[in-house]
Amino acid sequence: MSDIHDLTRKLQRQSDSKIVLLVADGLGGLPIEPGGGTELETAKTPNMDALAKAGTLGLSTPVLPGISPGSGPGHLGLFGYDPLEYQIGRGVLEALGIDFELGPNDVAIRGNFCTLDDDGNITDRRAGRIGSDIAAKLCEKLDTIAIPGVEVFVRHVKEYRLVIVFRGEGLGGEVNDTDPQRIGVPPLEPVGADEPSQKTAEIAKQFLAQAGEILKDDRPANLLTMRGIDKMPAVPTYAEVYGLRAAAIAVYPMYRGLARLVSMDILDAGQTLDDQMDRLKASWNDYDFFFVHFKYTDSTGEDGNFPAKVQRTEELDAAIPRITELNPDVLIVTGDHSTPAKMKSHSWHPVPVLLSSDLCRPDRCQVFGESECIMGGLGQFPAKYLMGFAMAHAGRLEKFGA
Amino acid sequence: MSDIHDLTRKLQRQSDSKIVLLVADGLGGLPIEPGGGTELETAKTPNMDALAKAGTLGLSTPVLPGISPGSGPGHLGLFGYDPLEYQIGRGVLEALGIDFELGPNDVAIRGNFCTLDDDGNITDRRAGRIGSDIAAKLCEKLDTIAIPGVEVFVRHVKEYRLVIVFRGEGLGGEVNDTDPQRIGVPPLEPVGADEPSQKTAEIAKQFLAQAGEILKDDRPANLLTMRGIDKMPAVPTYAEVYGLRAAAIAVYPMYRGLARLVSMDILDAGQTLDDQMDRLKASWNDYDFFFVHFKYTDSTGEDGNFPAKVQRTEELDAAIPRITELNPDVLIVTGDHSTPAKMKSHSWHPVPVLLSSDLCRPDRCQVFGESECIMGGLGQFPAKYLMGFAMAHAGRLEKFGA
Repeated sequence: MSDIHDLTRKLQRQSDSKIVLLVADGLGGLPIEPGGGTELETAKTPNMDALAKAGTLGLSTPVLPGISPGSGPGHLGLFGYDPLEYQIGRGVLEALGIDFELGPNDVAIRGNFCTLDDDGNITDRRAGRIGSDIAAKLCEKLDTIAIPGVEVFVRHVKEYRLVIVFRGEGLGGEVNDTDPQRIGVPPLEPVGADEPSQKTAEIAKQFLAQAGEILKDDRPANLLTMRGIDKMPAVPTYAEVYGLRAAAIAVYPMYRGLARLVSMDILDAGQTLDDQMDRLKASWNDYDFFFVHFKYTDSTGEDGNFPAKVQRTEELDAAIPRITELNPDVLIVTGDHSTPAKMKSHSWHPVPVLLSSDLCRPDRCQVFGESECIMGGLGQFPAKYLMGFAMAHAGRLEKFGA
Repeated sequence: MSDIHDLTRKLQRQSDSKIVLLVADGLGGLPIEPGGGTELETAKTPNMDALAKAGTLGLSTPVLPGISPGSGPGHLGLFGYDPLEYQIGRGVLEALGIDFELGPNDVAIRGNFCTLDDDGNITDRRAGRIGSDIAAKLCEKLDTIAIPGVEVFVRHVKEYRLVIVFRGEGLGGEVNDTDPQRIGVPPLEPVGADEPSQKTAEIAKQFLAQAGEILKDDRPANLLTMRGIDKMPAVPTYAEVYGLRAAAIAVYPMYRGLARLVSMDILDAGQTLDDQMDRLKASWNDYDFFFVHFKYTDSTGEDGNFPAKVQRTEELDAAIPRITELNPDVLIVTGDHSTPAKMKSHSWHPVPVLLSSDLCRPDRCQVFGESECIMGGLGQFPAKYLMGFAMAHAGRLEKFGA
């Protein structure tokens, strides 16, 4: 089947142009009160409004109408990949979220410490929610497990949660969870759905046997269950698909991980938006494409804190001049999904998109906001097509056909 | 390939929420005079306008741009099924239209009484358009036909038209029409395109031979031709795809049949819109999803009667408070296609959609009408995605991916 990447591979053209994709996580919102504005519409955003006036607006659908995406599918869409074609397992996402550098031969697994009774039945699926200090030490002990033919990594995440990675040739990712989802029964045996996954299941069994020995005196954390066992999807790289030298400037590890998934370089983002802007400026000559991630529009939305989301949006707006002074050929401001404070969660509502470039065809939009975006010149479009717009406005695509 | 139903199957979440899909058949229209409004825009619809102001509007494309759908594809699209993937044969639609309860082992066939001369050539393809009273009696005689290994049903439809159903294991639906589409030649022999369909063709031959005997003295209706031979498409059920307990409240049999196709429960709708609203209220606690069908916006459009379509639209509007007083979580008012009185037929024009829910993102639309819908927040979208919007706004879908 022909897809957009078959075209961008064939039509990509080298250029000195620069593209900045500024992602305000969970940017889209809802009014709290009937007749009110959304968070973005309530925020004072003079810099984005000026870009909106000269540029082109639109709305993107991350996955399909009505589908609320997680961060993984939300970002893959923005990066130009169909989130239904490239699905990211929970174990992989957890590993990306702690900055673990997953490779193509890695199987990533979410682990939960749990409590077994003397009969081997689970009495607590979260090991009494043990503290991070204890769990981190247990993970260090588990990290010493050696299994012939594979490398084993154990990393602590938070409280009772950990990540296990098996690295080796020919390992499959189709293995069931060992967490039985209830207590009073033993953990399930890992079983592989195909031959490579059977190999993984065998390794998982050996790992769990050794873990049982190592943890036998560490009640309530005297074993662990495995969940979300998966490999990284084989995602074509930005260099190959778009011919772009791409870099990510993201404070939170998960977004660095998602950028690594498409082979962007990961730059040191510091801790603040200002740090990120410093990094952008310092790296300006080294890359063609910059993914800059701003987390707090999402986290304030998840908290249900409308005023805080408004304030974070204004904070982002204030950073815009630090981007525009670099004269990017294309600047896109958008989100990976909507996170309305009203819902305290990700939602399916389409995501505001602002595209600024000398080659924009103007629409009649005057400010950056959801209602205004409905009338934007980009229309409503699947997020996976955003990169086509970016490449085109950056003069990086040849004509298709004669 | 992953489709929307793979997602809704996986992401569906149980909830107490209620969804009402109010379908005004053929709702979309056209102005009669340049500069005038459509039927919907001309009608006084204060109740729908109030919903439009608070809710979100849009336009749906039933099949593909430029394609005018029949009732079958129009409704399948609204129900969330791709009308190009699930095609309904004419025989099946005719059977549904007389409330015949088709099952998965049934082959349905449209029959036309015809006149044969002594040489066996057709002289009249509609048997002199014999009256319904005579034809109904002939159908009763034909209903006595017995063929080993299958059940045979013969039902009168109207005038010279009838439906034949063969019920049996392993019958195929790929059999040609026996109507030669001209006179002076004999009917065609039924031929099956594959082995199961050859079995059907053999049964059809036996049926036609017996019918010839039974009807030999009933000139001008001394035989019948067969058309639109087909089986029901295997359509996944609403319960499975959406996790919804769904019910249909439709006065006309064809729409009950279409609802039965996706395994909705069929409720007694009475004869009037008021009866339908009584039924809705009485069944409110028994179902999650209600499909309420209103025929007369289509039939007045087909008649080319603009004022009557306006009046019927106003009649529908007056019933809206009987729905809103039940406090549905999601109320959708739309059509299965457009039927402009100006054209006296179904048309391809996109269909106005009104979605009302507490989780609507407001747009700037103030009234429910075609021009206004162009600026609606749902945008223009394939009708098959409407159910995704419905499920999302009803809080019945989990997040996709982490």
